[in-house]
Amino acid sequence: MQGLKRTHYCGDVEGIGNEVVVGGYVQKVRDLGNLIFIDLRDRTGIVQLAFDDSTDREIFEKASDCHSEYVLMAKGVVRERESKNTAIKTGNIEIDVKDLRVLAKAQTPPFEIVDDTNVNEELRLKYRYLDLRRKVLQDNLIMRSKIAKVARDYYYENGFIEIETPMMIKSTPEGARDYLVPSRVHHGKFYALPQSPQMYKQLLMIAGFDRYIQLARCFRDEDLRADRQPEFTQIDLEMSFVDVEDILEMNEGFIQRLFKEVLDVDVELPLPRLTYKDAMERYGSDKPDTRFGMEICDISELVKNCGFGVFTSAIENGGSVRAIVAKDAAKTLTRKEIDKLTEYVKGIGAKGLAFVRWVDDEPTCAFAKFLGEGELDAILNKVGAQKGDVVLIVADKNKVTLPVLGALRLKVAKQLDIIPEGFNFLWITEFPFFEYDEDTDSWLAMHHPFTMPMDECIQYLDTDPGKVTAKAYDLVLNGTELSSGSIRITDYELQQKMFQALGLSDEEIEAKFGFLVEAYKYGAAPHGGMGIGLDRLAMIMTGNDSLRDVTAFPKVQNASELMSGAPNVVDEEQLQELSISIIPEKKEN
Amino acid sequence: MQGLKRTHYCGDVEGIGNEVVVGGYVQKVRDLGNLIFIDLRDRTGIVQLAFDDSTDREIFEKASDCHSEYVLMAKGVVRERESKNTAIKTGNIEIDVKDLRVLAKAQTPPFEIVDDTNVNEELRLKYRYLDLRRKVLQDNLIMRSKIAKVARDYYYENGFIEIETPMMIKSTPEGARDYLVPSRVHHGKFYALPQSPQMYKQLLMIAGFDRYIQLARCFRDEDLRADRQPEFTQIDLEMSFVDVEDILEMNEGFIQRLFKEVLDVDVELPLPRLTYKDAMERYGSDKPDTRFGMEICDISELVKNCGFGVFTSAIENGGSVRAIVAKDAAKTLTRKEIDKLTEYVKGIGAKGLAFVRWVDDEPTCAFAKFLGEGELDAILNKVGAQKGDVVLIVADKNKVTLPVLGALRLKVAKQLDIIPEGFNFLWITEFPFFEYDEDTDSWLAMHHPFTMPMDECIQYLDTDPGKVTAKAYDLVLNGTELSSGSIRITDYELQQKMFQALGLSDEEIEAKFGFLVEAYKYGAAPHGGMGIGLDRLAMIMTGNDSLRDVTAFPKVQNASELMSGAPNVVDEEQLQELSISIIPEKKEN
Repeated sequence: MQGLKRTHYCGDVEGIGNEVVVGGYVQKVRDLGNLIFIDLRDRTGIVQLAFDDSTDREIFEKASDCHSEYVLMAKGVVRERESKNTAIKTGNIEIDVKDLRVLAKAQTPPFEIVDDTNVNEELRLKYRYLDLRRKVLQDNLIMRSKIAKVARDYYYENGFIEIETPMMIKSTPEGARDYLVPSRVHHGKFYALPQSPQMYKQLLMIAGFDRYIQLARCFRDEDLRADRQPEFTQIDLEMSFVDVEDILEMNEGFIQRLFKEVLDVDVELPLPRLTYKDAMERYGSDKPDTRFGMEICDISELVKNCGFGVFTSAIENGGSVRAIVAKDAAKTLTRKEIDKLTEYVKGIGAKGLAFVRWVDDEPTCAFAKFLGEGELDAILNKVGAQKGDVVLIVADKNKVTLPVLGALRLKVAKQLDIIPEGFNFLWITEFPFFEYDEDTDSWLAMHHPFTMPMDECIQYLDTDPGKVTAKAYDLVLNGTELSSGSIRITDYELQQKMFQALGLSDEEIEAKFGFLVEAYKYGAAPHGGMGIGLDRLAMIMTGNDSLRDVTAFPKVQNASELMSGAPNVVDEEQLQELSISIIPEKKEN
Repeated sequence: MQGLKRTHYCGDVEGIGNEVVVGGYVQKVRDLGNLIFIDLRDRTGIVQLAFDDSTDREIFEKASDCHSEYVLMAKGVVRERESKNTAIKTGNIEIDVKDLRVLAKAQTPPFEIVDDTNVNEELRLKYRYLDLRRKVLQDNLIMRSKIAKVARDYYYENGFIEIETPMMIKSTPEGARDYLVPSRVHHGKFYALPQSPQMYKQLLMIAGFDRYIQLARCFRDEDLRADRQPEFTQIDLEMSFVDVEDILEMNEGFIQRLFKEVLDVDVELPLPRLTYKDAMERYGSDKPDTRFGMEICDISELVKNCGFGVFTSAIENGGSVRAIVAKDAAKTLTRKEIDKLTEYVKGIGAKGLAFVRWVDDEPTCAFAKFLGEGELDAILNKVGAQKGDVVLIVADKNKVTLPVLGALRLKVAKQLDIIPEGFNFLWITEFPFFEYDEDTDSWLAMHHPFTMPMDECIQYLDTDPGKVTAKAYDLVLNGTELSSGSIRITDYELQQKMFQALGLSDEEIEAKFGFLVEAYKYGAAPHGGMGIGLDRLAMIMTGNDSLRDVTAFPKVQNASELMSGAPNVVDEEQLQELSISIIPEKKEN
């Protein structure tokens, strides 16, 4: 930099009369002939460089040659600005430039570097390094860095040791699809990239490390959605000599400190909790957004003897009739809108949608004719509906009624725009251990098969698996699952029993978990943990709704990276060395 | 844990009369009939549990059933111990146990969990989770965690932002061999695992993040040595608006703080520096161990006219005659030992080894007969040899003489056991930019091709590439290269010139670095950085000489992990989905 050394970041320049040196990118040049103003930008903000009659001619000429995105260093004296800009921190001052270096010229970028952009995302991803010059994205990544820092500080202070687990591990046919890495040395064999450090962190507890944390990169070869990336980061932790309470308490402490330090938001502890069962009954979801009410209400008792076959047959088949109330929505949810909602619920498995729309004095209700004297009033009373409200009702098996109403609740709330700002945390506890799979007529583990059943449920393992709940817990924030965890089984015998209940053969157990199961034979302290999705956490804390906004170099829907063009073809020699070849693509006839 | 909550780690128990609850693994049971002592171990140390006549009988029975590696929680009262053990922190006290829970039983482990072990490493790696119970390994990983923590604290406090770069990237045929990851979605295409985040961190500087840090996992598919692992971690950083000085200064600050905080060792700043040229001349190495002297001395001037053809012809061919002196080594380095050293230097490229061995009054010297009056004295005087010393001399081209004497210096010092304890840091600067490759008769980049030449050398780019030195620097600790870095070229035109000098075609440039080269068109602040090998740093700071001792789950020489058995075979279906097949192994005839 030919002798200039930066003294201030642009956004931090202050003190009229100070001599300062700043460096940055040209945001804008305003050339008024005998006056030139350059907005110079770095990651902290913008400062105005001023050139006028008093400026050395050579420097003035240099300034007049500058264009957007040129890289400059400037030395000068801070002075008060004539026309102040209250929108920025340095809006009251400017730098009277005495020395100017053009460190790099820049071609005109394919799009303008401004906060508000309507340039299509594909182009911005191709030139990600330019897109990342936008302050909004920089601030996102800076906040993400801060979140990671607070996490490390907090857990470190609480005795957690950061241990790096391997990235090239054994492939285990479990959960999502693994990304594979062919081995050059071992013919026909592959490593897998970890879906999480699950097994390794359990081994670290068996080894006696007591408290482990890692901000771990995880990989899943799944089809991508807006809130998925093929690689993502987890604040992954595990603790020994603990039960559920200890883990929730430890992590609540983190959440409280994180939100205070990063957003200056006070989170009250303890965080609210719901059992899985209650969450499903009240919100139709195991990750409910509790920023608004609109809870599900069971009206089965009121309609079980009515004349409406849709209701009664649902109940007779062991199901239920349940409702949500959209307050003050009668005007917005017109017949036409309700028809759309009906299509929506049919799309997600319901047979239909019954409703009561109460615009004027008398509620409109198609099924009223099947009801007896006062039965409609009883229903409205039970669900708490008043004039101006719409009641939406689904009748079906519970495994349809509840999730459908849960999804509908969210959809309607968004449509009515009644979800307030804020951060609503919620623990979901006591997950069912098993999920019955009708296709295979067997019980599957809802969490991973090392999850500990609740003490009082172990007795039902053989006789009534559906009754067994797990020492598993999710942390939900504004309807997003942020974290998932459990206490692990540390008893070899119990573990064998769980495998049996899951119908796993000895061969399967050996192939999938052999070394881990073996490890538990040598004694393990009771332990459990969880993994907090760092990307999702950063997404919500920065107020975004795409992981791409908090990932420096994200991949798009088809798992490619538009900037570098990854994945790409490789040399035939490389494949030879790995002893693999590409199977020709099948031509469609 | 049935109502018990740990109050203390084992190593922290203190305060006679205190009621405490501890949890841990049984290190040892001493059953004396009416007295039982159990050493209980956790990651902090050991505490003695005592059971005697006053102990509840049920608890006493439980204690007598305990074996090594059982997992216990115990509640009791701290009391003074009868026979004190000054070797451990809690050696003056024991816990008079009032309540005992056996949380897990343990099979007899395949080897005893003790610090000093001579069990073969292969068995220990197979049961790594048991090997990791040994305090020495736990302490290593705990120190590694602390090193990482100090790194993050230091750089964060200095304005560095931790940004995660992708792990599945574009394969670039550069440097070491890439690990590849077949894409399921993109037929016949592959991701690569990063050898380092080099390109991404440069892009982050182009994007204006100004200061970046990441503790980045890196991957190289190379044949392993003791100090290599296929995956390793780098404290990776990059800074903008800086030159070499700023980067060295920033990182020296880290080194000083790190050694103070972790080892309570004072490192004096600034760290010593040597240019590459001086390091080669004085130590015959670009990563010299400067904990001892034994510097190389050029005696060409003294022998260029002597009658010894080996010397004179080396000089006539543009080479040199150089020597090192092994002080007080004449007794240890017998003729037989020197013969071995001669074989050694022949093995690494020298034609032979001349020597002067000065045991008694007269030095022994086979080539003395070729020397004139006083010439031997002059040589001994020049190299500083005295009675009791051995002078070892190599005559050849400089590219043989220097590295051979460098290696010999290290070998002899180890043999004589004259390397003192301590931490000797050294910056090596001004690396040559190009390396002449005789095989291909072309110039290769010694560092990566984005390395900036020294300002005063740019003029030689076309005319005399061998004269061009780079703004590249290595940090050496006790003869190990700890870190490597450089200032990057940010000027598009200069970069093109460098590519030309390296003889790269436009197609090669595009295939290897296309998007990065393109990015520099849009303006980039001057920037540079480095990557510090975290594994090596931890290895040296913990006093180990294998990376396996500071890696939780290391791989062995053939890149397999003995515990899990990675890599392994995968389902044919998985390969089908990835559109790859395994090429059958060639049978040797």
